[in-house]
Amino acid sequence: VRIDVAFTGGNLLPADLAGRVAVVVDVLRASTTIAKALAAGARTIIPCESAEEAIARAKAFERRDVLLAGERRMVAIPGFDLGNSPAEYQPEVVAGKTVLLTTTNGTKALLNSQGAREVLVGCYANYSAVLAVLRKLARAGSDVLIVCAGRERQFALEDAACAGRFVRGISRRGIRAELGDGARAATLLDRRYGSDIGKLLRDCEHGRALLELGMGADIEACAALNAYPVVPVYRDKQVVRRNSA
Amino acid sequence: VRIDVAFTGGNLLPADLAGRVAVVVDVLRASTTIAKALAAGARTIIPCESAEEAIARAKAFERRDVLLAGERRMVAIPGFDLGNSPAEYQPEVVAGKTVLLTTTNGTKALLNSQGAREVLVGCYANYSAVLAVLRKLARAGSDVLIVCAGRERQFALEDAACAGRFVRGISRRGIRAELGDGARAATLLDRRYGSDIGKLLRDCEHGRALLELGMGADIEACAALNAYPVVPVYRDKQVVRRNSA
Repeated sequence: VRIDVAFTGGNLLPADLAGRVAVVVDVLRASTTIAKALAAGARTIIPCESAEEAIARAKAFERRDVLLAGERRMVAIPGFDLGNSPAEYQPEVVAGKTVLLTTTNGTKALLNSQGAREVLVGCYANYSAVLAVLRKLARAGSDVLIVCAGRERQFALEDAACAGRFVRGISRRGIRAELGDGARAATLLDRRYGSDIGKLLRDCEHGRALLELGMGADIEACAALNAYPVVPVYRDKQVVRRNSA
Repeated sequence: VRIDVAFTGGNLLPADLAGRVAVVVDVLRASTTIAKALAAGARTIIPCESAEEAIARAKAFERRDVLLAGERRMVAIPGFDLGNSPAEYQPEVVAGKTVLLTTTNGTKALLNSQGAREVLVGCYANYSAVLAVLRKLARAGSDVLIVCAGRERQFALEDAACAGRFVRGISRRGIRAELGDGARAATLLDRRYGSDIGKLLRDCEHGRALLELGMGADIEACAALNAYPVVPVYRDKQVVRRNSA
C-alpha cells in the first residue's frame, strides 16, 4: 500500500483522494475537539464553511438539539454556544446534540477531503483508535492519505509530526508500505519532535499563538495521547463515531 | 528577521509575499535550468503559464532571438526548441537569446511569487551565490520566504531539503533569525538528507520518475553544488542575472 501526507488541506484534487482512505489531522484543535465531542456523547458534528452557514443550517433543527460552535482567529465566535476548546465539550453540554462546527483550518480540510473512500479524523487524543482502523484498512489494500489541516494554508509542525506518527504506526509490523516524499518527511519530524508532544505543541507557531491568548489548557488537552479513544468518520456531510474496526 | 518556507508554490497569497524576499526553489529542474541558461549567456528567461502562451509571446520577437522551452509530464514539448534539461542550455545554443520557458511546477511557483519585494531563483547549482545575496538582504532587515515549487501541488523532498540548506545558511554566523514551522522542518530535512545531494535526488519521488525516463544526467547536473554560480532575479515578468551583491 501507498502512504502519502499532504501538508496543507487546501490544495487537494479529486485524483489525490479517489479510492484512498483520508485522515484529517488538525491537532490544534479541530480534530481534538471533534474526538472529545463524540467521546462526550455528541450525536454528530456537521462541519460548516462559515459562521453564516452554521447559523443557516441550525434552522433545520429544534433549537435545543443543536449547538453552534467554532472559532475565527482562534477565538470563539460571538453569539455561538461553544468555541473550539476541547474542554468545553462536556457530556452535560453536548450529549445527544448536533454540533454545527466552523473553524479556520480543520473544517476546511474536512470539506476538501470529501471524495476519499473514507474520511477519518485523527489527532494525538485518538491516535491508537484511529491507527487500529487504518492498519485494518491498509491490510485490506487501501492506500492512505493523511491530510494535515495546516494553518492558514501553510505548513503546521504539530500536524506534520502527528501525521508522521500515523505513517510510522501503519508501516510498522507486517504492513509493507511505500512512502511518498511527504510521508518520509513526516516520519522524520515525528522522530525529532514526537517524543514530547506537550513540548511540541507549546513550541510550534500555532501553540505559541494559543498560549499568548491564555489557551494553555487547550494545548494540554490536545497533547493527551489517547485521551478520547473514538474514531470519527466523515460521511454524508456529518462526522459520527465509526463502528469499531 | 523572519524566515519561512512554503512547501508548495500554489497557495501563496499577497500577504505571504508583501515586503519579503522570495526564493523559488525547483531543484528538479526549473531552478537549475534557469541558473544554467543564464550562466551560459541567455539574455533573459520569460516564465510562461502554458505552451500556448509561450508560442503567442514568441511572436513579439525575431524568430532567431527566441527559444521555446519547457516540459509537460517531464518530457520536452513537441515542436519546442528545448526541454527542461540543464545540459541542453549550452552557450552555443542560448547565448544572447530570450528563452520562453513553461514547466509544470517551477514556472507556476515563479508566477505565484510575484508581489514579493524581490524574487530570486535558487537551487543547489547556484546555492552559495544566492545565499550571499540573501544574507546581505537579511542583514539589512528583509524577511525571507523560500517557496518550494513542489510537485503537482504537493510536497517534494528535494525542494524542501534545499530550502532547509538556505535557512541554515542564512541563520548562521551573525544573523539572528526567527524560524517559522516550515523553516524548522526544512532544516531538519536538510540535516537528514542534504549531505549527499546526489543520493537525495535519486531517491526522491521526482528523481525516481526522471530516472525511469532515462534522465539520470539531469539529476547529476541538478546535484552539482555551485556549478552555475549566478543569481537569477525575476523582475517585470523576466528572469535575468542580478547584479552582484
